[in-house]
Amino acid sequence: EEAKAVGWGILGTADIARKLVRAISRAGGSRLVAVGSRTLERVESWCEQNQIPSEVARYGNYEEVLRDGKVDVVYIPLPTSMHKEWVQKAADAGKHILCEKPVGMNAQEVEEMIACCEHNNVQFMDGVMWMHHVRVPVLRKAVDNQDMMGEVVRIVTSFTFFGGEEFDRTNIRMKSNLDGLGCVGDLGWYNVRAIVWAFQKEPNEVYAVAHKRNSEGVIKSLNATLFYDDGRFASLDCGFDTNCRQTLEIAGTKSSIRLDDFVLNASEESSSFIVNTSAFKDSGMIVEQTSSKHEAGGCCQEVRMVECMSKIVRTRQLEDYWPKIALQTQRTIDAIMKSAESGQPVKLK
Amino acid sequence: EEAKAVGWGILGTADIARKLVRAISRAGGSRLVAVGSRTLERVESWCEQNQIPSEVARYGNYEEVLRDGKVDVVYIPLPTSMHKEWVQKAADAGKHILCEKPVGMNAQEVEEMIACCEHNNVQFMDGVMWMHHVRVPVLRKAVDNQDMMGEVVRIVTSFTFFGGEEFDRTNIRMKSNLDGLGCVGDLGWYNVRAIVWAFQKEPNEVYAVAHKRNSEGVIKSLNATLFYDDGRFASLDCGFDTNCRQTLEIAGTKSSIRLDDFVLNASEESSSFIVNTSAFKDSGMIVEQTSSKHEAGGCCQEVRMVECMSKIVRTRQLEDYWPKIALQTQRTIDAIMKSAESGQPVKLK
Repeated sequence: EEAKAVGWGILGTADIARKLVRAISRAGGSRLVAVGSRTLERVESWCEQNQIPSEVARYGNYEEVLRDGKVDVVYIPLPTSMHKEWVQKAADAGKHILCEKPVGMNAQEVEEMIACCEHNNVQFMDGVMWMHHVRVPVLRKAVDNQDMMGEVVRIVTSFTFFGGEEFDRTNIRMKSNLDGLGCVGDLGWYNVRAIVWAFQKEPNEVYAVAHKRNSEGVIKSLNATLFYDDGRFASLDCGFDTNCRQTLEIAGTKSSIRLDDFVLNASEESSSFIVNTSAFKDSGMIVEQTSSKHEAGGCCQEVRMVECMSKIVRTRQLEDYWPKIALQTQRTIDAIMKSAESGQPVKLK
Repeated sequence: EEAKAVGWGILGTADIARKLVRAISRAGGSRLVAVGSRTLERVESWCEQNQIPSEVARYGNYEEVLRDGKVDVVYIPLPTSMHKEWVQKAADAGKHILCEKPVGMNAQEVEEMIACCEHNNVQFMDGVMWMHHVRVPVLRKAVDNQDMMGEVVRIVTSFTFFGGEEFDRTNIRMKSNLDGLGCVGDLGWYNVRAIVWAFQKEPNEVYAVAHKRNSEGVIKSLNATLFYDDGRFASLDCGFDTNCRQTLEIAGTKSSIRLDDFVLNASEESSSFIVNTSAFKDSGMIVEQTSSKHEAGGCCQEVRMVECMSKIVRTRQLEDYWPKIALQTQRTIDAIMKSAESGQPVKLK
């Protein structure tokens, strides 16, 4: 396609933005055109550190990024508490939006953001990079393969890393006024997304327990059970208190699928998942077990995410799927937070 | 050791008993001397099917096994609802006892069984075969290796198999008057045992949900969270509704240990577990991951269990450990059942 490259702007100079800068530079039909930060000094220093080409505009505030006519789409890696304001401002400025997760502090905020994007006819997408990996459609096909899986009845997923004491005290993800959802927003978002994606709907009810909080009351360790119709369920644990685990198990009546790197793929050259097909035989005397590794191709999922968004912008074919699944995720996160506060199961409407 | 072989009697002709017959025949210092069933016809037919040598006594009831002077220890694979009666009768007859799990319908029963065994100075042990595998002490050492694991903070474990419709209707494990604990007693017992074993104590509190029940109300699918001090926790799922999964993950601040065959080992020649040591680096840009397989030796765990019991009988060195951990397991199972009934978290005393 010989189209003009889609122009990307970035609001904020968070660490995570570096990943996207790299992805934009590698993605087809996409180029970085502007970066904004709170001060010009800050943006200059960040651009130098990250070797941003000189033709990329530097702004000492976010508004100018939104006024820049070369910017078609903005990436918003700001603290969660600032998302609603800047998503709405960006949408009102006619910019498409890729917003880091957790999208909002609650579903009410997210509904308003999405309504504003719809009103302005711009795309909304949350930054769940793993959803764009080439492995995902292969996985979808496997999950839906009833001959192999039988009925898919439960999911078990974990996402943790060990932050340590300084992290608990100083990291933005532990600040109640900035990212008040703590490990639930930062890590649980991916677990919930995987569950909503696999079962293709949000749960009916949620029960969650916060096992650890920091001195500000922000959750640093949690587990939850998500209830679906007909006895299907999912369980997840997330936390900043355990070594890095990023596992997803999708279990059916006939087989189980397992991924040990569902969020951050270890390699760009290849990816895979395991299918375990086992059964007790002879009244539990023996287990017949087969385990097979399914290769699913390699890619850089951030590059694919940028390309997906740029294509939407270029073709003007907005995709309902992305705001919908972001909102389903947020609604489930809301129920998790409410259950963790109340100590009671919480139904989703 | 040139000692006289320990004499084993079996009360009941359940399928599972075949496994123990084979184990007794292979175990050093152990021999099968008597089998009892409800009728002589039944025991004769079972002995023929399982090629039981003719010198093994056949009894058309359980009492005669307990009166047989050659019997030092009895194995009790009867339905759970019958355990208390026959454990007490066996103990009163001076026999040591290996009792299938779940040990009792509730902890009160198990306390009475154990008190009776103590009174009669006989060993009580539940039939958790995996605890006797040569892998277990190797695993213990790994779990306790703080340099490798850091602090052990959470456990995730699953044990399921797919029973199917006929199983739900007819299997003894789905009969409320025989094995009323359903999948919790049959499968969850192993999950709970692994958690109690790994954390070396029972939880403070439990929350459990029964996701499916059969027409008699017996639980066929459940998950639970077990709460420990200081924010440590464990989650488990068990059920007769999912393909065979028998996973145990013990996660620390530095590493995680994973077993995919913690109950029934696929091979007698070898066993292993995986140690995953991973961390996010560079603000979550990359994951540094190492995964190593630890070989832990091969054995037949049933043979080891029989040898363990026969040694206790021969040396008359009763081991407090086995009744204690069986009771801890039952207490936790009780709390799980109570929580599943009430829909509320249940504290253990």
